[in-house]
Amino acid sequence: MYPRDPFLADKLNEECGVFGIFDQDGLAVEEITYYGLYALQHRGQESAGIAVADGHTIRYHKGRGLVPEVFDEDTLDTLKGGKIAIGHVRYPTCGDTSLYNAQPLVIKYKKGFLALAHNGNLVNANALRTELEEAGAVFQTSVDSEVIANLIARHIDEGLETAIQNTMSKLRGAYALLLMTEDKLIAVRDLYGMRPLALGRIGHSYVVASESCAFDAVDAEFIRDVKPGEIIIISQDGLRSIQTPVPLKSGLCVFEFIYFARTDSTIDGVSVYTARKEAGKILAAEHPADADLVIGVPDSGTTAALGYAEASGIPFGEGLIKNRYVGRTFIKPSQAIREQGVRIKLNALRKIVKGKRIVMIDDSIVRGTTSKKIVEMLRLAGAREVHMRISSPPVRFPCYFGIDTPTKEHLIGARYSVEEICRIIGADSLGYLSIEGLLKTVEGSGCDFCLGCFSGEYPIAVEGKAE
Amino acid sequence: MYPRDPFLADKLNEECGVFGIFDQDGLAVEEITYYGLYALQHRGQESAGIAVADGHTIRYHKGRGLVPEVFDEDTLDTLKGGKIAIGHVRYPTCGDTSLYNAQPLVIKYKKGFLALAHNGNLVNANALRTELEEAGAVFQTSVDSEVIANLIARHIDEGLETAIQNTMSKLRGAYALLLMTEDKLIAVRDLYGMRPLALGRIGHSYVVASESCAFDAVDAEFIRDVKPGEIIIISQDGLRSIQTPVPLKSGLCVFEFIYFARTDSTIDGVSVYTARKEAGKILAAEHPADADLVIGVPDSGTTAALGYAEASGIPFGEGLIKNRYVGRTFIKPSQAIREQGVRIKLNALRKIVKGKRIVMIDDSIVRGTTSKKIVEMLRLAGAREVHMRISSPPVRFPCYFGIDTPTKEHLIGARYSVEEICRIIGADSLGYLSIEGLLKTVEGSGCDFCLGCFSGEYPIAVEGKAE
Amino acid sequence: MYPRDPFLADKLNEECGVFGIFDQDGLAVEEITYYGLYALQHRGQESAGIAVADGHTIRYHKGRGLVPEVFDEDTLDTLKGGKIAIGHVRYPTCGDTSLYNAQPLVIKYKKGFLALAHNGNLVNANALRTELEEAGAVFQTSVDSEVIANLIARHIDEGLETAIQNTMSKLRGAYALLLMTEDKLIAVRDLYGMRPLALGRIGHSYVVASESCAFDAVDAEFIRDVKPGEIIIISQDGLRSIQTPVPLKSGLCVFEFIYFARTDSTIDGVSVYTARKEAGKILAAEHPADADLVIGVPDSGTTAALGYAEASGIPFGEGLIKNRYVGRTFIKPSQAIREQGVRIKLNALRKIVKGKRIVMIDDSIVRGTTSKKIVEMLRLAGAREVHMRISSPPVRFPCYFGIDTPTKEHLIGARYSVEEICRIIGADSLGYLSIEGLLKTVEGSGCDFCLGCFSGEYPIAVEGKAE
Amino acid sequence: MYPRDPFLADKLNEECGVFGIFDQDGLAVEEITYYGLYALQHRGQESAGIAVADGHTIRYHKGRGLVPEVFDEDTLDTLKGGKIAIGHVRYPTCGDTSLYNAQPLVIKYKKGFLALAHNGNLVNANALRTELEEAGAVFQTSVDSEVIANLIARHIDEGLETAIQNTMSKLRGAYALLLMTEDKLIAVRDLYGMRPLALGRIGHSYVVASESCAFDAVDAEFIRDVKPGEIIIISQDGLRSIQTPVPLKSGLCVFEFIYFARTDSTIDGVSVYTARKEAGKILAAEHPADADLVIGVPDSGTTAALGYAEASGIPFGEGLIKNRYVGRTFIKPSQAIREQGVRIKLNALRKIVKGKRIVMIDDSIVRGTTSKKIVEMLRLAGAREVHMRISSPPVRFPCYFGIDTPTKEHLIGARYSVEEICRIIGADSLGYLSIEGLLKTVEGSGCDFCLGCFSGEYPIAVEGKAE
Repeated sequence: MYPRDPFLADKLNEECGVFGIFDQDGLAVEEITYYGLYALQHRGQESAGIAVADGHTIRYHKGRGLVPEVFDEDTLDTLKGGKIAIGHVRYPTCGDTSLYNAQPLVIKYKKGFLALAHNGNLVNANALRTELEEAGAVFQTSVDSEVIANLIARHIDEGLETAIQNTMSKLRGAYALLLMTEDKLIAVRDLYGMRPLALGRIGHSYVVASESCAFDAVDAEFIRDVKPGEIIIISQDGLRSIQTPVPLKSGLCVFEFIYFARTDSTIDGVSVYTARKEAGKILAAEHPADADLVIGVPDSGTTAALGYAEASGIPFGEGLIKNRYVGRTFIKPSQAIREQGVRIKLNALRKIVKGKRIVMIDDSIVRGTTSKKIVEMLRLAGAREVHMRISSPPVRFPCYFGIDTPTKEHLIGARYSVEEICRIIGADSLGYLSIEGLLKTVEGSGCDFCLGCFSGEYPIAVEGKAE
Repeated sequence: MYPRDPFLADKLNEECGVFGIFDQDGLAVEEITYYGLYALQHRGQESAGIAVADGHTIRYHKGRGLVPEVFDEDTLDTLKGGKIAIGHVRYPTCGDTSLYNAQPLVIKYKKGFLALAHNGNLVNANALRTELEEAGAVFQTSVDSEVIANLIARHIDEGLETAIQNTMSKLRGAYALLLMTEDKLIAVRDLYGMRPLALGRIGHSYVVASESCAFDAVDAEFIRDVKPGEIIIISQDGLRSIQTPVPLKSGLCVFEFIYFARTDSTIDGVSVYTARKEAGKILAAEHPADADLVIGVPDSGTTAALGYAEASGIPFGEGLIKNRYVGRTFIKPSQAIREQGVRIKLNALRKIVKGKRIVMIDDSIVRGTTSKKIVEMLRLAGAREVHMRISSPPVRFPCYFGIDTPTKEHLIGARYSVEEICRIIGADSLGYLSIEGLLKTVEGSGCDFCLGCFSGEYPIAVEGKAE
Repeated sequence: MYPRDPFLADKLNEECGVFGIFDQDGLAVEEITYYGLYALQHRGQESAGIAVADGHTIRYHKGRGLVPEVFDEDTLDTLKGGKIAIGHVRYPTCGDTSLYNAQPLVIKYKKGFLALAHNGNLVNANALRTELEEAGAVFQTSVDSEVIANLIARHIDEGLETAIQNTMSKLRGAYALLLMTEDKLIAVRDLYGMRPLALGRIGHSYVVASESCAFDAVDAEFIRDVKPGEIIIISQDGLRSIQTPVPLKSGLCVFEFIYFARTDSTIDGVSVYTARKEAGKILAAEHPADADLVIGVPDSGTTAALGYAEASGIPFGEGLIKNRYVGRTFIKPSQAIREQGVRIKLNALRKIVKGKRIVMIDDSIVRGTTSKKIVEMLRLAGAREVHMRISSPPVRFPCYFGIDTPTKEHLIGARYSVEEICRIIGADSLGYLSIEGLLKTVEGSGCDFCLGCFSGEYPIAVEGKAE
Repeated sequence: MYPRDPFLADKLNEECGVFGIFDQDGLAVEEITYYGLYALQHRGQESAGIAVADGHTIRYHKGRGLVPEVFDEDTLDTLKGGKIAIGHVRYPTCGDTSLYNAQPLVIKYKKGFLALAHNGNLVNANALRTELEEAGAVFQTSVDSEVIANLIARHIDEGLETAIQNTMSKLRGAYALLLMTEDKLIAVRDLYGMRPLALGRIGHSYVVASESCAFDAVDAEFIRDVKPGEIIIISQDGLRSIQTPVPLKSGLCVFEFIYFARTDSTIDGVSVYTARKEAGKILAAEHPADADLVIGVPDSGTTAALGYAEASGIPFGEGLIKNRYVGRTFIKPSQAIREQGVRIKLNALRKIVKGKRIVMIDDSIVRGTTSKKIVEMLRLAGAREVHMRISSPPVRFPCYFGIDTPTKEHLIGARYSVEEICRIIGADSLGYLSIEGLLKTVEGSGCDFCLGCFSGEYPIAVEGKAE
């Protein structure tokens, strides 16, 4: 399969989104999970799955594709009658697109059934696999959920809660994790709170989701974020929280605010919208430009562009138009077509950019290939100058916690200076938001942040960190 | 199949888009047509088709779905080796979604093969069918192209050009029409120029398309619009134009500027972007509001909202966020979910609308159901006041020229006054752009406009016009 | 798509099967037609279609594949509520596998709707097409039904019955034809009765079908065969027959008895089973063999083998076993696999053939490639001698009436003598049934037979008959 | 999904077929496995899978459907380049049709990769699962292969061969098992040899398969059967055999000869064809009939019918014709159609049965529903008498070793005497082959047989054997 978006695939990519519900109001849990996952679709388009528990057993369906492609009325019908549900959307890392890696993972173990949905990445997964294999475990997938399931199964004699705590003490890395037994829904967030996870309510029923936008989609009320190191257990008896010991500083992935999360979500107390708009404003202060028009690369650059425009007084306009129709597959353009410079996904609005000095805002530069194309497109459309502004610092280091980063030789920020990048992409000037500026955009959250991809300093030591 | 967009289907809908190419440079005509159609996908998502001619015969492939769903590398391979191609994307009217109505229509007649791709609607199609049936014709589809093909076949002894002219003299209604023989590409626009059609060039090869955005997609250069009543014949000998006699006033569909066309297209000399932005500005003058924030209903209301903001001085912001993932199918929400008020496609950005007096710009109100939901959503998100502004006049009459309009009882503008509509949708105030204001947005085009859906006055008499 | 049966495709192939019903008992006509077509599946596996009439309009569904692949409960649902139905299964000639050639063909003409399902082939189709094109007709398919529909439409002012008669007077060739209007079912058989067509009854409802086995499938009672040149009109008023003038001698395709028809059908008074068994008996008399065992090439050679065994006194046995699972597609075997002599479809039963002198009965030899493989397979399995006996005369001439015959250079009987063929396929002896013997197998039918593929003498003159 | 064969599903059903190859000749192992599995398709139609090893890793593809439906040229391409392959076709027991239960099962464990394909059923699977779960194992499927994989993984420190032996010592039940590591192919047969497994050769390459017909399909030479309790290890160093200790008496499933295996296979020294023919002969002696014609229920009853005819001197004939086209799905017949007595799969040949006293041979009666229908069909076709003869004893007990038997209340032989069954199915007389007769048909094999479904006595004690 050719990538969905061959001409704009130049982004860091998220691994997953999770959603769960424990019903106390007679709700159709499978349908609510469907809509919840649909709202989280931006977090993963490779596969989707839903598992439901009805007190006795767990049923599930998963498949490759978007949520509305994987589920239809017939498949949802097979999931009816449940009281609890968890769901998962997945972005594949490492070219691993096997159906067998779709989640939730459902296992049968000593105590019955267990379903797991995981967002994040363990840095010691291989070590844990080896350890488990030494003890006789066999693996059928390459997902971390299978490691976690095996660990829980091996600690289960101590009871489920203790088993989870003991498992957490072995896991190093990022995880926003949903577990479901026949009669319980359990939400766990890693000790650093690296991946977001929020708790909400529909009537007397609890919901959990990677982002608050999923709550809005199903008309749930946001209660609070799950805390780093927290285990929330929801059963017929209500909700119970166990707080495991956590390090002094947490490490929420700051890229959630820059690009991953949906603009209408609020994560750990900070509105994604506000953070992005603020980034634009600070960027205007850090890298002003003498220009006629501010434009954003749709869709992710728009909010920061509005902020830049507001702060700089330069008018905002729509200079780039995006084709909204993205089918599951796309033919691979022939060489001729590629050279011809086809503008399939984005088109510059000649009328508005012609003769203008343009400030163009994008959220990040990963490989630089798309940026180069957009600058060219604007010049062809008559832009007099193109000043590129990036609402985040240069991405210079890989992520070890579940974000798909290209290797260093393809990471333009790792190889070149800002001046060089500016020359490579052909802009008249280039300015990145500083790390300090970035941190100001998320001020007011109670938490600390992982800035690893910018600074190379990670909250958790990463062995064998490649240079 | 459930509609693609169950919660936002409250729009007037276009019937089709067409694209054609006559190659003189060794281009892959089927691939270029694929990308051209993809750029016109917004004009029709029900079916797509491409026919190619190679001097001897015509091959074709068509099917239901989006362009990237209908065509893959295998099907495009079966179309390789052509010199001419025409393509079509279709929006179905009247619930008629049969594959047999997909276009291009390819026929074999006395002189060989003929392929047709048609955007528009004939108002005398039934009379022409009856006349042809009286003369022995049989029909296999319900598309106008089949009527046109039969007329041409019956006039062909006079030669193709004369046959086309004689056919045009019988057709009453809107048509932007592409014809392809084994060795010719012919573009025809109806006498009033009701549907757009433009001519462009890639090197020495000519292209034609419903909108100029398709030219940008394939890196073609815009030459000019096809004129009302013009026949353009492209063959190995080059391009020839025949201008048939036309009425004094033309009648381009003004809704192309309001909603149908893509923002980055220019039609008959007017930039769609400029028209939309201008509409917002005039709207600000006609219906000012005492407010804190201007927002647009994405995606179509955004440009006008920027115009309103600019003219009024009220800041623009993103108050509504749209889910970008639309699969081909979608489960039909259960009653419970519907009542619960699910926000599947749009979500209000609480952070930005809370406590504010909002001016919300949309391009049109058709049934009013969506407008009502959005107003509610904004209020739930904390908006203090919601002032709705519509960048076109009230739609009060049906279209007979190919636009899918609901019956009068579902057309809110036909049944209620502006005050009543305001009450129904629950807004604090409601203002529509005046017809005069609308005409100002497209000033500078050389043409006249059809305003039938607003005024009930159509360029062409429509018999049996229901009241 | 690779052929369904890559290793046994060495047969003459039928073009189509038709089925129709006019309900007077409240039957589900679409479901009965589904089962009727399924019983006729051996007559065509390329596409299937059903059209139903309900007094007002005609609905239809057709597609590529086997009957159970084309129709499911959803598609049959869309055909519910009809009173009349006609259906068609199709075998494609000339590599033409386009969906657009699937039948029934449904047209709209002067008098309303008309559906047609045709089995057979017109020899003057091209001339008729040209004539119709001269008169302005346009064609969208390459099927004869479209020609017939156009002819009827052009004669319709004389009334439907006269139009059909006038149309028949123009058609030269083979046709078993079903027509359906909104309220009538009409069955027509060509003047020579070349293709079979039978009339039956379920309660007060009439059914028509290519073969009587379809009646058994739906528990219908056989009434009689439709006569050459007969038009049967079934309406609310009952059944009416019009006998058009016919030539002195009819010409039923004798290959129906040899291979095409199902063993359990009776055609024009002769049981297919009896004819095949008789062929085996006569073959034993004409070409005795000194052997230990008679075997048949499954499935078509089995009945004749039983006849040969009975007449010769040599025991019958199962010497060849067939794999019953044929999927829609099959990978194309690599060269290595082909050379290795894979036995995918047929396997020789070593246990039974080893050391024996075998008489192997097949119904016909077309290209000879399969016969050669089977002889080799038997020898490898230890057969001492292989005496091939064919229950029909050598196929030496093409069929112009709807049967797919290879060109002369691939028709082994056209190029080589029996002795040469024997040598080519590697048999110890080879004997074909004589034409006289063949005619004895169908004695007792009231009709005459087309023996064209054996004798080169056709009931109808074929212009441009290639030599 | 509705069963493939709704009107003839009245059979005991096999669970699986396996095929494996270790290449030493540069063969395309994935393609040979495809054809091998295709020859074993009768052993399982629910899902198919192939795994290949290339010395370093294991790749696999599996899916639901027939072999040619699951694999196409693209999927086989992804398996190219292997040196070893194993494949599996599956018949689902217990309504368990999940894709996740398709085989081969591929796992990663301490020593690398392991693929397993299993035919049979363990009677202590639940106990072993519980034991493994107690030790911390988690399960993702319900197939026995997963239990076996876990056991091997837990014993692996002793080396693979010892691990397999230790695992075998824990397994109770039937298994013909193929294992594949990165560089070894291992074939294992249970201690009683309950399921068949044979060894063959193509050049210097070894193949293993459930039945010898798969060897014929790929032009392999049969070497010998794998022995009960034997482990065959094939590696670069050649073939090595380990014979584990076995009980005094073996217990090959005798139903392989009655119905499961293909007629052209030879199992443990006995030709399936010979056994079936012999069964017919003995049946003629045990239950003679005064009749005019012997017919077999196709396809499985034919061979025994030929034996009965030969021994009794009553002529054999084809009295029942089967529709050869079975699509993957089939509409569920409406009640009306069911009552009408549709003859969709089988049809009686009136011509041959009319007025005759018929002996009808079938291989077994399970529920009796189909037998009843066939008797009725023959009477309606004019049979004077119908004497049913069954080429096996009454099935009166469930199978615990992998054969899908209905519960006792649906097992007609468990509830009724032969006389009662005769009355229920409406035959004039009914005779079953005796157990002694049955054993005579397989005389000459070196092995003993499981007759559990006839006698209730199983080679292996079955705890909790329901009564």
